Amino acid sequence: MENMERRVNLDAISIVLVRTKFSENIGSVARAMKNMGLSRLILVGGSSPLHPNAYKLASGAEEILERAEEIPTLREAVAEMGCVVGTTSRARKERDSALAPEALVRRLIPISEKSAVALVFGSEREGLTDEELSLCHLYVKIPSSESFPSLNLAQAVMVLCYELFKSSFQLTKHSTPLAPAEQMEHMFDHMEKTLLDIGFLDRNNPKRIMRGLRRLLGRSQMNEREVRILQGIWSQIDWQLERKK
Amino acid sequence: MENMERRVNLDAISIVLVRTKFSENIGSVARAMKNMGLSRLILVGGSSPLHPNAYKLASGAEEILERAEEIPTLREAVAEMGCVVGTTSRARKERDSALAPEALVRRLIPISEKSAVALVFGSEREGLTDEELSLCHLYVKIPSSESFPSLNLAQAVMVLCYELFKSSFQLTKHSTPLAPAEQMEHMFDHMEKTLLDIGFLDRNNPKRIMRGLRRLLGRSQMNEREVRILQGIWSQIDWQLERKK
Repeated sequence: MENMERRVNLDAISIVLVRTKFSENIGSVARAMKNMGLSRLILVGGSSPLHPNAYKLASGAEEILERAEEIPTLREAVAEMGCVVGTTSRARKERDSALAPEALVRRLIPISEKSAVALVFGSEREGLTDEELSLCHLYVKIPSSESFPSLNLAQAVMVLCYELFKSSFQLTKHSTPLAPAEQMEHMFDHMEKTLLDIGFLDRNNPKRIMRGLRRLLGRSQMNEREVRILQGIWSQIDWQLERKK
Repeated sequence: MENMERRVNLDAISIVLVRTKFSENIGSVARAMKNMGLSRLILVGGSSPLHPNAYKLASGAEEILERAEEIPTLREAVAEMGCVVGTTSRARKERDSALAPEALVRRLIPISEKSAVALVFGSEREGLTDEELSLCHLYVKIPSSESFPSLNLAQAVMVLCYELFKSSFQLTKHSTPLAPAEQMEHMFDHMEKTLLDIGFLDRNNPKRIMRGLRRLLGRSQMNEREVRILQGIWSQIDWQLERKK
């Protein structure tokens, strides 16, 4: 239904911490998760969730520590997940395709309805290895100061959990809902076809310019009406081309 | 300019911590502030910003601790501030009028252009007293799970700093400068003309749809290259129309 709000399904989302060194961070992550309505924590290597320092920082979210799953490798941890999201802060090739948190949340709205989603965080110092990053389907990067970009692990978890939580209950308070990813994709497909037809995109490499246009329009967080307006522009161009043939 | 989004001026914003008990939280707050481009920290009572545990958690944001101002009372701390924002999590009368973080940020956009703003956080256990809350002009409440609403102090600071940073970073920290308003206007004029030529806009009222498109594209905060790409699309459509006449 067009006006039906779609929201992230928090129950589908797990936080996966890889080789976390400091128990305090695990405790803080548990608290942040519970604050934001998440409950499933998976630990791959690293410190134990049952360390007293983890308990101290959890301050009320001990149940998340006690139910945390410890799994030896990331590959096994995400084996059942339909969507694996890697968090990245450093300059890597993944960064170029990394989504902003809000854009990620939008992508996760339809995905989390049907599939389990893992948000994967690397260790405090080294982040995720290339092999671990290659297990991810999407990447997210939290915007931060260029001169001091590296967030504390539990702070990074909080920011993403907060964005997820906001979209799990608050979208109805927005005056206009965001367009679902599927509608956006439909519009982008149409746009690409029309821009090819008018000779604007390079037939040999249409994706290069389209990537830039997707980024540009993706940033605006369009509502459905806006997506329809853009669709209307492409349709009108199609019609003009057809008419003048 | 209609299409130019206005942004929060981060330099106008101070974080004020009242009676913070744990030095670790002060260190984590300093790190979160620096991550999100804030620099002025004010402490009212509580632990010292120079405690070794604060340094340990600041991990790179020591300068914020060293420059932190210690002021005996909140009244004195906010004496020069044009706008004082109280953070509140408990059920109080202030909560009813408390803004969501994004709504607060929108309110602070015009205020921070001209006035100093204090974001005030109470102690870990007790929050702010009634007298301290009465010194505040606005209240903000971070959305969180009803069954476990209380965020760690530094996490709460991070969430608000993150919302502020999101609304500010393209102004000063973005790697690519934003397109100047004149170039945007030029592109919009061209867009309007082309969309009229293909019969997409209503000749009797072209501005109605154009206003929506300006808002949509204005939100993306385009750089010059992106504006040129859009210009290129309109030019290519013009060329096709001309060719087929």
